[in-house]
Amino acid sequence: MAVYTEVSDAALARLTQLYDIGPVTALKGIAEGVENSNYLLTTANRPYILTLYEKRVNPEDLPFFLGLMDHLAARGLTCPTPVRTRDGKLLVELEGRPAALVTFLDGVWLKSPEPRHCRAVGAAMATMHKAAAGFDIPRANALSLNGWRFYAGKLTGQADGIKPGMAALITSELSHLERHWPRTLPAGVIHADLFPNNVFFLGDRLSGLIDFYFACNDLLAYDIAIGLVAWCFTNDGQWDPASAAAFVEGYHAVRPLQPDERAALPLLMRGAALRFMLTRAYDWLHTADSALVKRLDPGEYFAKLTFLGGISQPEHLGLGA
Amino acid sequence: MAVYTEVSDAALARLTQLYDIGPVTALKGIAEGVENSNYLLTTANRPYILTLYEKRVNPEDLPFFLGLMDHLAARGLTCPTPVRTRDGKLLVELEGRPAALVTFLDGVWLKSPEPRHCRAVGAAMATMHKAAAGFDIPRANALSLNGWRFYAGKLTGQADGIKPGMAALITSELSHLERHWPRTLPAGVIHADLFPNNVFFLGDRLSGLIDFYFACNDLLAYDIAIGLVAWCFTNDGQWDPASAAAFVEGYHAVRPLQPDERAALPLLMRGAALRFMLTRAYDWLHTADSALVKRLDPGEYFAKLTFLGGISQPEHLGLGA
Repeated sequence: MAVYTEVSDAALARLTQLYDIGPVTALKGIAEGVENSNYLLTTANRPYILTLYEKRVNPEDLPFFLGLMDHLAARGLTCPTPVRTRDGKLLVELEGRPAALVTFLDGVWLKSPEPRHCRAVGAAMATMHKAAAGFDIPRANALSLNGWRFYAGKLTGQADGIKPGMAALITSELSHLERHWPRTLPAGVIHADLFPNNVFFLGDRLSGLIDFYFACNDLLAYDIAIGLVAWCFTNDGQWDPASAAAFVEGYHAVRPLQPDERAALPLLMRGAALRFMLTRAYDWLHTADSALVKRLDPGEYFAKLTFLGGISQPEHLGLGA
Repeated sequence: MAVYTEVSDAALARLTQLYDIGPVTALKGIAEGVENSNYLLTTANRPYILTLYEKRVNPEDLPFFLGLMDHLAARGLTCPTPVRTRDGKLLVELEGRPAALVTFLDGVWLKSPEPRHCRAVGAAMATMHKAAAGFDIPRANALSLNGWRFYAGKLTGQADGIKPGMAALITSELSHLERHWPRTLPAGVIHADLFPNNVFFLGDRLSGLIDFYFACNDLLAYDIAIGLVAWCFTNDGQWDPASAAAFVEGYHAVRPLQPDERAALPLLMRGAALRFMLTRAYDWLHTADSALVKRLDPGEYFAKLTFLGGISQPEHLGLGA
């Protein structure tokens, strides 16, 4: 939830000179997304999302993010399409910040997804993985093993204050994951944040994917693992094998999983749960006094990680071949 | 800036049964308005605003607010029009809160209005005052003299911590205003919060008024006074007589001001400046730890009130006949 930067009358006027979109008929701050300032911007022709990138986004990453959306949209994936300026640019400067205009995607995100939705999300993720092939800007995943070690260090002495037992869990999981993390599975561009709020549906039909601002190069199966921890626990925290099986089946139908990818899923899911526990715990400590950011509960991922730590076989999660 | 209440999948489904609007194609939290949860809700046909009323709104006031918008829209004022349910209701319950659906109004609010915009706002305010005639639900202004005394009491011992000198200014202004507040000027339904963010423009054309959630019965000239303190200081705090003259001329051209109304404007403006200083100071102290509300600076109205306290004649503000 966030609008940090206001768009002045002069900046709005300049925007309509930069882009060939006609007069702006509405501009409203959107209370979604915690990283950037997002506006619904409408013209007589259609709605757009205007994003001003705030300080948590590295400007050097923007050609990757915008180029990826452009690449995926050109290959038929329904995702926001960056709009080019009159002189062909995807990125502009507005109010002293990098900014981009992308098309508005119809759809509503699901607060209580069911297995049929998880199947559609798995299929869409696989479609994205395949469509991203050939995209040639690299971006390392800053939130993989090395990044987890970094965040763990930042939480030293404070983790147990968030949740008793969190410090020991971080230590033991990091140690286990560093010893066993796979290195040889198929890799490519992953979304890395495909949570329910980043997937839109129109009725039961998946209408598109949004928010590629964590996308990076990593193991494709790690993206599936993120999807499983994000989609396949019920809202009251129970593991739902039917949703998980549907997610993986949906994926497999579009991009068949190798046996070693499937076998690695329980471990990769522990990594995914640790990743979100760590960043949420860090944000919990560091945005306490912020007036504009809604903090996400690290305890949710503490519970998920504790559950997953006891499981090593995909069959025990309902993920057998 | 606010979305407090999330709309569940089930609540959204129920909404489309209650209203004859067709399937919902998008639902996005809007980061504007500090009182309620606002969503942009679109269908294949058109956009709407869905509002869930949070605890600062007295549910007993909702028939007034929604009835007023309905009354004004029926008389040609461009303002959000409440949509009736299939069985004719303006108000529903959603997620345990009173809720309403209103039409989406095109336009953008101005961050740096100029005199020509102020003239249009004055005219629109007068049009609203005339269109509200005949609306027969009464609502007293809780934020008039008695309300100011109440808020002043809540700030005892704390006002000078916000701004040195604020406590003495409150005491002297309240005393002066209570002795001199006019009782016999024309009264009716006023907007009572017609700030720039509540007035939309398409280019230079005023396209509508929004946010009637402070509307009430009070002196019509007090509404003008609120408009003058909200619109006619520059963004760096200087009084702008040209904007003020244009505002009043725009109003006068639609509903001619009586001489005693014009003469009362300087005093009414002191009241308006005190009102916004008090409520902002109160919110400053009481929403410090809230994660979702952007606090407005009470210091802005401390400066405006200090300036206005030295002026008794409308001519000195550029408001002569």
